[in-house]
Amino acid sequence: MKIKPNIDDEKLTRRISGFNENFNKTEIDVIEEKPLTLYLNSQEIVTMMTINDYPKYLGVGYLLNQNMLSKNENIKSIDYEEDLGIVVVRTDKKTNFENKLKKKTLTSGCAQGTIFGDMMENFEKIKLNRIYKIKAHWIYKLSKEITLTPSLYLKAGAIHGCVLCKKDKPLLYMEDVGRHNAIDKIAGYMFLNKIKPEDKIFYTTGRLTSEMVIKSVQMKIPIVISRSGFTAWGVELARTSNLTLIGRAKGKKFLILSGEKRIENN
Amino acid sequence: MKIKPNIDDEKLTRRISGFNENFNKTEIDVIEEKPLTLYLNSQEIVTMMTINDYPKYLGVGYLLNQNMLSKNENIKSIDYEEDLGIVVVRTDKKTNFENKLKKKTLTSGCAQGTIFGDMMENFEKIKLNRIYKIKAHWIYKLSKEITLTPSLYLKAGAIHGCVLCKKDKPLLYMEDVGRHNAIDKIAGYMFLNKIKPEDKIFYTTGRLTSEMVIKSVQMKIPIVISRSGFTAWGVELARTSNLTLIGRAKGKKFLILSGEKRIENN
Repeated sequence: MKIKPNIDDEKLTRRISGFNENFNKTEIDVIEEKPLTLYLNSQEIVTMMTINDYPKYLGVGYLLNQNMLSKNENIKSIDYEEDLGIVVVRTDKKTNFENKLKKKTLTSGCAQGTIFGDMMENFEKIKLNRIYKIKAHWIYKLSKEITLTPSLYLKAGAIHGCVLCKKDKPLLYMEDVGRHNAIDKIAGYMFLNKIKPEDKIFYTTGRLTSEMVIKSVQMKIPIVISRSGFTAWGVELARTSNLTLIGRAKGKKFLILSGEKRIENN
Repeated sequence: MKIKPNIDDEKLTRRISGFNENFNKTEIDVIEEKPLTLYLNSQEIVTMMTINDYPKYLGVGYLLNQNMLSKNENIKSIDYEEDLGIVVVRTDKKTNFENKLKKKTLTSGCAQGTIFGDMMENFEKIKLNRIYKIKAHWIYKLSKEITLTPSLYLKAGAIHGCVLCKKDKPLLYMEDVGRHNAIDKIAGYMFLNKIKPEDKIFYTTGRLTSEMVIKSVQMKIPIVISRSGFTAWGVELARTSNLTLIGRAKGKKFLILSGEKRIENN
């Protein structure tokens, strides 16, 4: 694994004392959570709650997955200011998104719904190829290895994990308190390290909602595995774009609700 | 219970067929999830993913919990347009938030970070009173009754629940796919039905993060119980504002990390 959970990083958890059900003093490890404000050039974008282990990957990945930065745009610099809790992604010239936003903000304020509409329009154009196939036993093997890897989840709980895998091997294992930060950090890492998505698999501890499906498809990753369940719209979007969606993966059990043709039963 | 999970409402789940680990056809109930765009007067605010059972409560609750609507402002109408997927909350006159936003948008675009800063500033002024106390055995009783109540979670999974309780009785049990929609729907219901918060308890299936703590404190509910874990900032904020925070409540076990003086051990 190139990136593993940083369980020994003292910045990521805190020892907190409290009381148990018998009113005896007790101590537990609790996960840290910090606000991080993201800027694209001079445009303030969003304030995210994060464990803040990879603010630069998170910033770039968020912009990519929200369609605010396209893969053709040139990143000039990524600056993280720890004391201010901000990360600034700067491009060569003004992005398409900034130009569009300017127009929209003038007519309808923040225009978040309009941005959402744009994202859906772009999403509908993406079709994943059907070439890459996986073997059913990789699913068990990945689930087992990921579950047994020492993680912030096992140490402190209250955190989601997302793992980029190739065949039956986990490559990048990111965790975060924010629902989608873990996947955005992987998106940022992949973009900045030029890792191709077509032969990769996502494993996530979170639910397979529309957001998870949209992000995976935008990243062009053809297969997603989760130990949790599905939402109906998540399944619908996965079917539209030929994404393979495997949920409730526990032990040797799993459920495939989309793209079963990519899985070889042996 | 005045509001229970609507497990028989056909709009909230969908029967979807797929394949199990032996590649046999199988069918499961999956939760619905829809985008709902919220407007405050002519200002577009946000697009939320929701099961959409109570769009009006969700819209009003979101605005209240984000400090975009104050309890002094007069709501003239709440309109839900099902075909467009929008809910519009209209007030007598322009809200303080709209006036402030106008100014901020001119200088820094969407100004989400600035809005977040304002919210934190307001949060720090709220101190919950110490008068209301609960008995430790209510915690077991509430957990048990809520866990055994038929719910969309038990039917279809992939959903969070939030329950407003008084003493050892659940009053309003809301569920939603969106992390904080369940609590926002309760906030909307409480405001529109003039339910006082000082003697109430929140039970949630989700984690005790900063957002959960901020929302509970803004709603002036003094006690929060969760079956999940904590984040360090969640605990810190709870201690600042005298919120009682009880996590990892399962069976007869629980952990109190803030406000233990409100709990009587009998």
